[in-house]
Amino acid sequence: MRFNVSCELEYNLNSAATFLFALKCIQTGGQNVLEEYVFTEPEVHMEEFHIESGMNRFSRIETFYQGTLSVSYRALVDVSYRIDSAQDLSTGGSGELTPEAIPFLFPSRYCQSDRIRQQANAMFGHLRTPYEIASVVSDWIFENIAYVSGSSGETSSAVDTMETRQGVCRDFAHLGIAFCRALDVPARYATVYAYQLNPPDFHACFEVLIGGWWYIFDPTRLAPLNGLIRIATGRDAADAAVCTIFGDPVLTRSEVFCGLADSGFYPVTRDSLMENQQVIALL
Amino acid sequence: MRFNVSCELEYNLNSAATFLFALKCIQTGGQNVLEEYVFTEPEVHMEEFHIESGMNRFSRIETFYQGTLSVSYRALVDVSYRIDSAQDLSTGGSGELTPEAIPFLFPSRYCQSDRIRQQANAMFGHLRTPYEIASVVSDWIFENIAYVSGSSGETSSAVDTMETRQGVCRDFAHLGIAFCRALDVPARYATVYAYQLNPPDFHACFEVLIGGWWYIFDPTRLAPLNGLIRIATGRDAADAAVCTIFGDPVLTRSEVFCGLADSGFYPVTRDSLMENQQVIALL
Amino acid sequence: MRFNVSCELEYNLNSAATFLFALKCIQTGGQNVLEEYVFTEPEVHMEEFHIESGMNRFSRIETFYQGTLSVSYRALVDVSYRIDSAQDLSTGGSGELTPEAIPFLFPSRYCQSDRIRQQANAMFGHLRTPYEIASVVSDWIFENIAYVSGSSGETSSAVDTMETRQGVCRDFAHLGIAFCRALDVPARYATVYAYQLNPPDFHACFEVLIGGWWYIFDPTRLAPLNGLIRIATGRDAADAAVCTIFGDPVLTRSEVFCGLADSGFYPVTRDSLMENQQVIALL
Amino acid sequence: MRFNVSCELEYNLNSAATFLFALKCIQTGGQNVLEEYVFTEPEVHMEEFHIESGMNRFSRIETFYQGTLSVSYRALVDVSYRIDSAQDLSTGGSGELTPEAIPFLFPSRYCQSDRIRQQANAMFGHLRTPYEIASVVSDWIFENIAYVSGSSGETSSAVDTMETRQGVCRDFAHLGIAFCRALDVPARYATVYAYQLNPPDFHACFEVLIGGWWYIFDPTRLAPLNGLIRIATGRDAADAAVCTIFGDPVLTRSEVFCGLADSGFYPVTRDSLMENQQVIALL
Repeated sequence: MRFNVSCELEYNLNSAATFLFALKCIQTGGQNVLEEYVFTEPEVHMEEFHIESGMNRFSRIETFYQGTLSVSYRALVDVSYRIDSAQDLSTGGSGELTPEAIPFLFPSRYCQSDRIRQQANAMFGHLRTPYEIASVVSDWIFENIAYVSGSSGETSSAVDTMETRQGVCRDFAHLGIAFCRALDVPARYATVYAYQLNPPDFHACFEVLIGGWWYIFDPTRLAPLNGLIRIATGRDAADAAVCTIFGDPVLTRSEVFCGLADSGFYPVTRDSLMENQQVIALL
Repeated sequence: MRFNVSCELEYNLNSAATFLFALKCIQTGGQNVLEEYVFTEPEVHMEEFHIESGMNRFSRIETFYQGTLSVSYRALVDVSYRIDSAQDLSTGGSGELTPEAIPFLFPSRYCQSDRIRQQANAMFGHLRTPYEIASVVSDWIFENIAYVSGSSGETSSAVDTMETRQGVCRDFAHLGIAFCRALDVPARYATVYAYQLNPPDFHACFEVLIGGWWYIFDPTRLAPLNGLIRIATGRDAADAAVCTIFGDPVLTRSEVFCGLADSGFYPVTRDSLMENQQVIALL
Repeated sequence: MRFNVSCELEYNLNSAATFLFALKCIQTGGQNVLEEYVFTEPEVHMEEFHIESGMNRFSRIETFYQGTLSVSYRALVDVSYRIDSAQDLSTGGSGELTPEAIPFLFPSRYCQSDRIRQQANAMFGHLRTPYEIASVVSDWIFENIAYVSGSSGETSSAVDTMETRQGVCRDFAHLGIAFCRALDVPARYATVYAYQLNPPDFHACFEVLIGGWWYIFDPTRLAPLNGLIRIATGRDAADAAVCTIFGDPVLTRSEVFCGLADSGFYPVTRDSLMENQQVIALL
Repeated sequence: MRFNVSCELEYNLNSAATFLFALKCIQTGGQNVLEEYVFTEPEVHMEEFHIESGMNRFSRIETFYQGTLSVSYRALVDVSYRIDSAQDLSTGGSGELTPEAIPFLFPSRYCQSDRIRQQANAMFGHLRTPYEIASVVSDWIFENIAYVSGSSGETSSAVDTMETRQGVCRDFAHLGIAFCRALDVPARYATVYAYQLNPPDFHACFEVLIGGWWYIFDPTRLAPLNGLIRIATGRDAADAAVCTIFGDPVLTRSEVFCGLADSGFYPVTRDSLMENQQVIALL
């Protein structure tokens, strides 16, 4: 599918600062950025680089003035998905210990899988395949954690979310990752643009490695799984934040848009009751 | 029923210290201490006093020497219980806001009911009466928290136990209290001698106020509910520790005994499957 | 000194709820409530009782309607203080283990003295007398914790405040208490009306037991120490909250006033540089 | 310098398990592994691979039997260091935001720089250069955190260490990293063999990026800085553990050795009082 995405962020600056943006869609085997524009107001120097084998694209801006900085991005992106039926994934044991998997088995800042291992075993230890684990965990989060805007902050982690039982997409994804890793299922964090997300915003999901593919799970169920455009991938939001700021600027405005540049979109969503459940991997 | 209880504690002393012991059985409307002996080796001055309206009996010892302190206690105690059937308690809403109840509705050091309110509501919010809440909470703890000696420490709290899913009697009681208070059910901590506890040791349970009586629940299910002799009552283990030490002595030996001084003991235990479940309040 | 105090609180009610108010000034040996009025709008039944030997006065209101509840209180109160010079308190070791002191040596919900014992020893372990400890702790908090309205919440504790380094009067008092108890100095929490507090609001301080008197310390330094009128006393804010709500009402308005009904007020404040520092105990 | 290193680890196996060992010295621009042997008893298949651009060398073993697994490693390694004087590093602002630096500026599982930012600013915010920050942080840890074997566990983090004020080399390194990152100084974790460490064991330090070199700091001061042989590098111990186990094996024996295979070793250590302080970067 082809999508138009855009965003505009505005910051208030008081003193010298450095911004590290991850706004741009990344180029992958299955995701192709056809056109892309980035503007700043005022015009400032922007330096781009990749880390972690191209899975993140950072734009660095240094500012030395007081006032306002506005950053706008828009792009036209082709996205391919792998669609499987759940039955086809219902084989294989957990613990895919390939080099690709290993960094995503370790606990990370916001996904303290080491601290929730006992809970994970008590709640999900009876499940056998990575797909079962990921889908039951995702359903459990959807059913038991309340989506409440503003209920969590930058330092909120999976352990906190289990305590407060509320959060936003970032927290839902962190909790899914923490449970999966606690059960030795490799899991990572994806920051995305999301078609049909309402209100439009950046979105976050988690991906689980099954048989060599990273299948995507969205415990918020707020957007179709086949309308996601990848911005950044990482162990958790520490790696894949849309903007990391060194200094004291304050975000004053944020607008995000994701529209269809194609026709014939048939949403694939998760419904725990559905037979022939479809599962999506972003390529 | 009549019980013989005794204990002997030995400490290694390096510098001046103050001990606050709560070893002695308290005198209540239904618990009568018939005989009681306390010895120390070497002989030291021991000062006794009560706080919180006689619900705790403290013995204070100050030491100024290096070496060993041994404290022995034995007593013959008559205990009365109120036994009700669960059906009789299955009425009444939560929130018994009497003066007696109020201190036991607030969060305390090891029972952070304010922090687990959302979890409590998600897990037990559908239950209606205080008895239902207390018994389902107690059964849930028995089924989901592993009893592992040495798995927790002095600073372990209900929030920690939910995370690690393991603990000892102190932790089981704290978690029961935290969940009950989070649902507005007054709950308190009891330190007891326990008949048929194996291996013999001090024991801890929680009590819930229902219709003016404090019914006792033991989520460890390690001892009969009608073989408990009360030592101390409090909001949590901070109030009702067997020994609080100011200084650096180290416990080197602990022996506890609880025997029947009567005949005809028929254990009352909790079994979540049993019809006509009996419920016990220590008088 | 004689003060006029008043407050008016307004709540929005959606369903049945129970309020436990601690708004009224308590009667003590040195504090005398001369006149007192309480109104509710609409008129509802209010039941009053005391707990913990008269140190807290609770007013309980149960509501069964939807709409608004407004509670107003005003009183004319005489307050006496004991004023000592700091030198006179600079004797005596820590660890006043009297029955009155003991509950205030234990860790409590928001004052986890057991968890910050090592920090307390590293930072303040060289100090010798209870007065030195309390005053250096209070000064350290004033200098190192930022007073930021809205920076903390109902579940914030002393351990959290050490982490975030910011809070409000409640957090400042909790941290002072936690450090003192960690060093075996009995410390408790006081909710007060405060003359010359700007903007007017309820206020919280901590009190330390030295030689049989509870001296008051205000690490916020926001109000004179001799303009405080006691509302409630407890181990921490769990015991001494102005209002504890069982149910879902939301506070929509709060106005507090404290004025002088006398002449000749000479503020006593703490200034760590001042010689002949004066210390105050509310009687 | 040339060193002989070796280790032998023994595990007790109850059921199928997967081990991920990072025992082998890595090959870098300045570290050259001349000879290397690895044995297992019984003989099992061992698969080796690298992740994160060769900075970690993992050996994976899968076991399917009950009994004992022993793994032995020995190697002869040449190590080069860059030695600078502290003065030469005392320039440059913080915030080296190069692609190499970025992953080591983010908070990680055991180094929650986001949670201790306020503390870091209060304690070290007045320092100006990355070298000043790293060395004052390292000295502060040495002086204020007690090295106590067995005082921490696998889930212990920098925030926990600030609370308990004790830990082992892993905790010292985590705290150093957390403070540096909180002040925007890139910092990472190194697992090493350490010459003259007594008793011999694996060791952990932290490295800080200054002017393109990763200088090493050891807040334990337990071993010379020029006797370290690098095993693994990572964001924290989650990345760079000597052994990560998937399953339930238990470590029953661990022996580590590091000896000089050269002559003329002159230890370089940190002494905060020394003029002309030397600083070491492992090449």
